[in-house]
Amino acid sequence: METFAIVREKLDQAVEVLREKEVDLWITFVRETSQVRDPCLDLILGLDLTWQSALMISRTGERIAIVGRYDADNVRNIGGYTTVIGYDQSIREPLLEQVQRLNPRRIGLNFSESDPAADGLTHGMFRVIAGILGGTEYSARLTSAEEVIAALRGRKTAAEIDHIRAAIGATEGILREVEALVQPGMTEREIAAFIHQTTRKRGLTPAWEPEYCPIVCAGPEGTFGHRMPGDYQTQVGALLQIDFGVRREGFVSDLQRTLYFCRPGEESPPEEVMRAWRAARAALEAGRAALRPGAQGWQVDAAARQTLVEAGYSEYLHAFGHHIGRTVHDGATVLGPRWERYGKSIEGVIEVGNVFAIELGVWVPGYGYLGCEEDVLVTPDGAEYLSEPQEEIWCIRK
Amino acid sequence: METFAIVREKLDQAVEVLREKEVDLWITFVRETSQVRDPCLDLILGLDLTWQSALMISRTGERIAIVGRYDADNVRNIGGYTTVIGYDQSIREPLLEQVQRLNPRRIGLNFSESDPAADGLTHGMFRVIAGILGGTEYSARLTSAEEVIAALRGRKTAAEIDHIRAAIGATEGILREVEALVQPGMTEREIAAFIHQTTRKRGLTPAWEPEYCPIVCAGPEGTFGHRMPGDYQTQVGALLQIDFGVRREGFVSDLQRTLYFCRPGEESPPEEVMRAWRAARAALEAGRAALRPGAQGWQVDAAARQTLVEAGYSEYLHAFGHHIGRTVHDGATVLGPRWERYGKSIEGVIEVGNVFAIELGVWVPGYGYLGCEEDVLVTPDGAEYLSEPQEEIWCIRK
Repeated sequence: METFAIVREKLDQAVEVLREKEVDLWITFVRETSQVRDPCLDLILGLDLTWQSALMISRTGERIAIVGRYDADNVRNIGGYTTVIGYDQSIREPLLEQVQRLNPRRIGLNFSESDPAADGLTHGMFRVIAGILGGTEYSARLTSAEEVIAALRGRKTAAEIDHIRAAIGATEGILREVEALVQPGMTEREIAAFIHQTTRKRGLTPAWEPEYCPIVCAGPEGTFGHRMPGDYQTQVGALLQIDFGVRREGFVSDLQRTLYFCRPGEESPPEEVMRAWRAARAALEAGRAALRPGAQGWQVDAAARQTLVEAGYSEYLHAFGHHIGRTVHDGATVLGPRWERYGKSIEGVIEVGNVFAIELGVWVPGYGYLGCEEDVLVTPDGAEYLSEPQEEIWCIRK
Repeated sequence: METFAIVREKLDQAVEVLREKEVDLWITFVRETSQVRDPCLDLILGLDLTWQSALMISRTGERIAIVGRYDADNVRNIGGYTTVIGYDQSIREPLLEQVQRLNPRRIGLNFSESDPAADGLTHGMFRVIAGILGGTEYSARLTSAEEVIAALRGRKTAAEIDHIRAAIGATEGILREVEALVQPGMTEREIAAFIHQTTRKRGLTPAWEPEYCPIVCAGPEGTFGHRMPGDYQTQVGALLQIDFGVRREGFVSDLQRTLYFCRPGEESPPEEVMRAWRAARAALEAGRAALRPGAQGWQVDAAARQTLVEAGYSEYLHAFGHHIGRTVHDGATVLGPRWERYGKSIEGVIEVGNVFAIELGVWVPGYGYLGCEEDVLVTPDGAEYLSEPQEEIWCIRK
């Protein structure tokens, strides 16, 4: 199964990352993952687990899975684990035995104050593993695996990039169908329903929670941002902004498209709207130009933010960009401003193989919200578009 | 929206539970919940949140939500929160301010070593909130909210029970369609594909991870338990067991049905199979009889387990029962044996309003696996079936 081929590839990559980050043993410690799911499971397992389970990857190259007996065969099927131990009553003994045998100096666990994607270990399960290791020298060797996870998740393999590209292509197709369909007088809710229907027809699901995916912002009266589609209507002489992505075979896309409903006789949006659009596009391009290997997240945001502000527009109240991959906020480095809520995430360094959604927008009083969002791949020479970037506002004449 | 009506009902119930359990303030502390989702969110919010967010419920009756500015309107729409604070840069100040104003002696957080449904707080987020409260007297007042969550989740309201009942009805319908369809020579995978198709057609989704939902165990050669449907085929003179449930409007069911493919001329399964079935059914009924308000989880399991063993069959290697509701392992009390992996969960006390799936099975060499699983509601007089219990093996004559 192809899912497992990608998992095996990531397991190999994980060993390399452990060597680079000097973490001897990385333990993903989970249970009942259909209830609370550590985001790392998609990377290194691709299955759910029921009882307390430890996925242990060692810098020596061993990959040991200790799982409930009913899960053991499924984990063996993946083919990426060198040892699979199925237990009946308690994980304590096999876990202690493996840790003692491997004798790691640094043990990485999945917790992070700044990176949600590296923070899948629950506090209860932290207490369980700290209890199991309590009284041994290993309990003092526990550390955050956030750097390991950030590198592993962020450095997309060729197969991962292909999957993201396919999700983007599907999203662009759906957004073009919306362009063909929309008319003045439709509510945000109607547009969202059409997008959901089209997505389902193609056998896909929304990239994030369906209530907010798509986000639809019609006309000049609403508010913009992370809210559910409502009763606001598209209008002649006003903007329509859509923020949408799909999940396709486990990978996602995240794009925004901006439309304008021309008045009779109008060939393009009024100058006020065009000026804002050019400023937004220029800011997006400035951010993309700064998105190079070695840059820090906040530097990329600052390039875009400054360009927008210098053009005379308010700064956007969110981050410029975020990783996408298995999820739409795919962890690690955020391309965001130095605000407390972003923590250390904005200090992360851009690496080759990273895939980001980059976005910003402008509120144009009297017309509504316009937003640009594209998906890009970081190469040694800079960030290249994976999506076909929207260079002009899509004008609807109906 | 009906979802929010149930959320408001649970928020009212939460205040009562806090008074009973003498917890002054219960804080659900989350971020990026589309990535790591605290199971309590379904109970008290019904939405996802993006930035660091605190849902604070006080025994005084106040319900305060501190969320990122873009989420604030959506939380206001629920109508169940008395105060909704949207912030731009940091949750620190509003959170500290509210805690100081409420001045709680005991602050419950969502962590638990034994109950996954009460363990939605990540270790990283625990460190964040401990840091925010660090240096105040409140950091020493943090405690597990597991008892609050167990009571709130376990005591189903009338509306919740109606929803579960509807999910069970839909599942029974799908399983009857399977009965009408199956023939000797079908693979487990084919049966699972039919069930997925039928589920989708009805606008429903599987109750747990689709790879394992349904679990299908055909004939005498396979293994049984929590594994994916494979290439084993249904056979004349052999059993077929299916473990399946659906999610319908946010609530789930979990049932097993056992089928037997009669040989030419056979009217019912052979005596060897019938004896095992009667033993399994008697054990299930013994467990159900023990499932009364005030009993502890392990006592219920012991009643069923002992009945089966006394009839001369091996004990099942899992727990007898688990809560169902929003999820199929709906937290808190497990009706399981005193094995280490069940921790304290089996010491929980059964309460009126609890809904459990109860299950067990027997491997019949030469025939395959037979399983019984039904869903029941605990009333003051004992556990009543919500499903139509399978009293006889379904015999297929084709």
